[in-house]
Amino acid sequence: MSTEPVPNSLEAVGRKASGVNGQHNEHLDVPEGKSDVCIVGGGPAGLMLSTVLARLGLKIRVLDDRPEQTAVGRADGIQPKTIETLQMLGLADGLLRRGVKVFDICMWRGSRSHDLRRVDREVHYPASIVDVLHPFILLCHQGMVEDVFVEDLRQSGVEVSRSHSFQKFQQSGDDSAGALHIECLVSNREKKTVTSDYIVGCDGARSLVRQHIPGTYSQGTPHNSVWGVLDGELDTDFPDIWSKTVVYSEDYGSILMIPRERNMTRLYVEMKTRTDSKSLGQEFVMDQARRILAPYRVAWVFIEWFGNYQVSQRVAAHFSDPTLKAFIAGDASHTHSPKAAQGMNTSVHDSWNLGWKLNLAVRGLAKGNTLLESYEMERKKIAHDLINFDVEHANEVATGDPVRLADNFRINTRFISGVGVEYGENDINRVQSFGRLRPGCNLLPARATRYIDSNPVDIQLDIPMLGQFRLYALVPDVTDAKQALYLETLSNKVLSPSSFISRISEKASQSYAGKPRARRQENQFVRPERYTKTSELFTFSLITSTSQTAFEIGSLPTLFSSSPWTVYVDDVASCIEKWLGPLEAGDMAIVNVRPDGYVGSLEKWNSADEKAGVRAAEFLDDYYSRFLAT
Amino acid sequence: MSTEPVPNSLEAVGRKASGVNGQHNEHLDVPEGKSDVCIVGGGPAGLMLSTVLARLGLKIRVLDDRPEQTAVGRADGIQPKTIETLQMLGLADGLLRRGVKVFDICMWRGSRSHDLRRVDREVHYPASIVDVLHPFILLCHQGMVEDVFVEDLRQSGVEVSRSHSFQKFQQSGDDSAGALHIECLVSNREKKTVTSDYIVGCDGARSLVRQHIPGTYSQGTPHNSVWGVLDGELDTDFPDIWSKTVVYSEDYGSILMIPRERNMTRLYVEMKTRTDSKSLGQEFVMDQARRILAPYRVAWVFIEWFGNYQVSQRVAAHFSDPTLKAFIAGDASHTHSPKAAQGMNTSVHDSWNLGWKLNLAVRGLAKGNTLLESYEMERKKIAHDLINFDVEHANEVATGDPVRLADNFRINTRFISGVGVEYGENDINRVQSFGRLRPGCNLLPARATRYIDSNPVDIQLDIPMLGQFRLYALVPDVTDAKQALYLETLSNKVLSPSSFISRISEKASQSYAGKPRARRQENQFVRPERYTKTSELFTFSLITSTSQTAFEIGSLPTLFSSSPWTVYVDDVASCIEKWLGPLEAGDMAIVNVRPDGYVGSLEKWNSADEKAGVRAAEFLDDYYSRFLAT
Repeated sequence: MSTEPVPNSLEAVGRKASGVNGQHNEHLDVPEGKSDVCIVGGGPAGLMLSTVLARLGLKIRVLDDRPEQTAVGRADGIQPKTIETLQMLGLADGLLRRGVKVFDICMWRGSRSHDLRRVDREVHYPASIVDVLHPFILLCHQGMVEDVFVEDLRQSGVEVSRSHSFQKFQQSGDDSAGALHIECLVSNREKKTVTSDYIVGCDGARSLVRQHIPGTYSQGTPHNSVWGVLDGELDTDFPDIWSKTVVYSEDYGSILMIPRERNMTRLYVEMKTRTDSKSLGQEFVMDQARRILAPYRVAWVFIEWFGNYQVSQRVAAHFSDPTLKAFIAGDASHTHSPKAAQGMNTSVHDSWNLGWKLNLAVRGLAKGNTLLESYEMERKKIAHDLINFDVEHANEVATGDPVRLADNFRINTRFISGVGVEYGENDINRVQSFGRLRPGCNLLPARATRYIDSNPVDIQLDIPMLGQFRLYALVPDVTDAKQALYLETLSNKVLSPSSFISRISEKASQSYAGKPRARRQENQFVRPERYTKTSELFTFSLITSTSQTAFEIGSLPTLFSSSPWTVYVDDVASCIEKWLGPLEAGDMAIVNVRPDGYVGSLEKWNSADEKAGVRAAEFLDDYYSRFLAT
Repeated sequence: MSTEPVPNSLEAVGRKASGVNGQHNEHLDVPEGKSDVCIVGGGPAGLMLSTVLARLGLKIRVLDDRPEQTAVGRADGIQPKTIETLQMLGLADGLLRRGVKVFDICMWRGSRSHDLRRVDREVHYPASIVDVLHPFILLCHQGMVEDVFVEDLRQSGVEVSRSHSFQKFQQSGDDSAGALHIECLVSNREKKTVTSDYIVGCDGARSLVRQHIPGTYSQGTPHNSVWGVLDGELDTDFPDIWSKTVVYSEDYGSILMIPRERNMTRLYVEMKTRTDSKSLGQEFVMDQARRILAPYRVAWVFIEWFGNYQVSQRVAAHFSDPTLKAFIAGDASHTHSPKAAQGMNTSVHDSWNLGWKLNLAVRGLAKGNTLLESYEMERKKIAHDLINFDVEHANEVATGDPVRLADNFRINTRFISGVGVEYGENDINRVQSFGRLRPGCNLLPARATRYIDSNPVDIQLDIPMLGQFRLYALVPDVTDAKQALYLETLSNKVLSPSSFISRISEKASQSYAGKPRARRQENQFVRPERYTKTSELFTFSLITSTSQTAFEIGSLPTLFSSSPWTVYVDDVASCIEKWLGPLEAGDMAIVNVRPDGYVGSLEKWNSADEKAGVRAAEFLDDYYSRFLAT
């Protein structure tokens, strides 16, 4: 939940979640020596970034001022795109099994002239609007999500340093390496200074890291409306507690209800204005819920958590310092209302965006500041998109007009789901004018058959997250002489030692040899070497409509035959047409996908052009040399 | 793998699997006091039975003579029906993520006149023949499967007693409770006697428990052919090591290749006759593989396990003693060739079949011996079906005729997948003559929308395994007055205190009050109380084609309104028609599903018949009173 809490008003009431979090309270010491990146904050943003960087082999420190993980309350909604992102990391299974899935939205309305009644029920993510693998919101307590990350970090050999309160950081002028000196307080007693090349503040709405970066003041409009949030198990005959439900009472205002795992229901209740502290209490919210939901019976089996907060939409003026050594992510960089279940999702994707760029920067593979600068450029736009949507959305929830609220949902469905998040044009996202793929946007889901083992797979999820760019060569007919020639030329050109791709791959090899990715136990099943054999930086993939029986992987040009796990046959659901639209005979294309799964660039050529292979290789060198450097 | 090993010839070579099994080597003491069931053997059969019984609340002991779980070799193939069964227990996720999936079969043939070449590639489980959710074989080392069970047992509070070698058991005549006295040897030193009401020997092909049950001698035909099995990582340019592949060389015989998790390939190599011990060795098998696969390069990165075995098809004459206190399951009751990947699957389903029957017997809810007798009746038929298929299949593999082998596969596809396993008619499986569901057979997969939260679900997997019978009332239109009347009558009759279902439910309540199901941490997500509120023994479910907007769960008759999580709307894929075939107007049906997910009985009525509700209630009482007793 991305909120600016009302000072001193958050209180945890009732039973504490037990058994959900495998909490480890040891105050482990921060590891010795300089780290590549120091992450401040162990919430979803900080843990996501840590997970990505630890897997990619960076030396990281994770400082969290809390002695334990989040046990109750806070964020709980995981949107379709976030599920997909977690799947790319192999982290979604347990959450999908345990979480509650919301497929629809119900609207209720009561007034003096009409008893409370359901006025609408809508599919939340209609297939006609949102093309996602998991068309639902997954409700999981934030602590469950943190658990998944913490376990994953352990697999990579990283433990969160709990009870480590960040105090301040500074760049030492006489430190030739330019390292940051970061001061923290351990268990509120011992002062400790650690050094790091980069620092990322994932320390929430009141981020201390942000306060130490000049010029990152928050911009935005604080609202005066205050909301109460109540998590507990309801005992009620109100029928729609397992959907996302908005109940509007003309007399008493609105409630937003969200089902939760463990039989719970979360209620958001608006308190129109901030009045005396009593009226902000749990009892008032419970009474308000009873009044709004009358004549239905409303009681609680138990209440796990109660909090209230003041909505405040803010975006930091900058997401990093001018030297690009200090960053902020998650609530530290933007806050908004929790009601569209965006907070954890936006935070996770801030980190998802920043992670691979930091990896390439640390490894010296990034060209100048292009990659690191793109973090603010891309994510600040999204934060503003979110705030703009959120102001409108929060107003509609409060107003209670079901038609207008439904319209607001419908218009913003893609954005809410996360797949409507679109980055602007820059050196990584190169616009083009054909097909349905858009640079800066999520790769459209597509199924195909993996040739080598005939497994039908979701292409967008098939190649594990290894910090690599994915190059999909889409070639309708590999048995056609001209298309085969194109592939052969492309292969030779790309693999030629003088190509940019070869040279940067060579540099990447050296980097990964010295600083390898985490050697994780799970790798014996994931088999990362299947994707890194030709290059640590690129996975080369072929997607073709040619039947599996008409060609052998071993007969393909080296670039593809040496990457047999990424040869796909387009015989399941027309991936090529879905991505590129209808093609002319002989049309072939390359789609470059960024390490975070967003489309970077694409181009097409026709096999009638004898130079097509050469042009494709040039296109690749040109594209990648804009933001990578040997 | 169900095999009769060649005495003293099994040897583990090369690297031992590391990190796959969370092995616990403590020799924990057997818990005190009499157990309900003592399970001998901690392989897939024993662990599956233990998992089921522990969840259902029985007091069990699990004795395993090995100090550790299976680390290398042995079984690895999980068939579609077994995946489904594991899903019913919520245990498939990790295996699905880590295992290798085989979707097709390739056949290769070489002779003096023809170089080795692929002669066929076939889909293993074509949708037109096998209707399953997961149309593939999942290859996971037996140790991974055991791991999943052992972890699950821990959640239920049960630890396998390792290094406990079963010695003998006897029923003490002067023991009024008729308990069995079971003697075992702990760590080959200490003799220990435990008592139990039942004993189940899951102790493999050379079962000692079987030897102590009179009249259970194995029947069958030992073959003289000997096979070598080799698990390791291949370094080869042979392209089809990720499919199930049969390679036949006219000169050198057959190899069956199966991909394995962790980049491995399993080779089965036939040694036509048993010759000197040298020829049975690993080097010979490796050479044989090289000869058969020439001209492809064949080397090994590492070899994890080598074993050889003599194929022997046997079925025990009886699967229990005459007093129905001692049972055998898995390899203890039948052995066969491992090549169709049936062993672990058949073993797991022996236990799946026996588990719920033992639960009802222990709880005093079973009528006479009907349920326990049906175990041998049902599973011995399957063992014989398996042997018959296996003899033929093993011969076809050895013969190497691709056309005949492909035919053999095709004919037996349903059986191999596990969904073709069909139990004969008895008091639990009552034949009828309409629809596509067959009593004694697996419930056909079907999707529908769960009304309460609009989640599309797989009906066959939706209700968690709690040892209950599931009663699906299929009523096309609940808003139709006559169909509504039928439901109302059915509800009233079933809930009337005098109905058999009410009376046996009352008895079940007492039983579960005294001997509750395991209180598992995972229950906070599974919410078993959603399914047991009306009865511990039955879940009542409604499937209707009526639109979600046209009725409320709260307005349904009590039997269904009090079970809101099992009201389904048939708006996804025509479940009702799939199960029942085309219906006349006003036709309604009830499908009774056994606790193991097999169809027990079904009947239909027409709403034009005013007595339909009464007849349906009578049908239920009649059916369940055949094998349950108050």
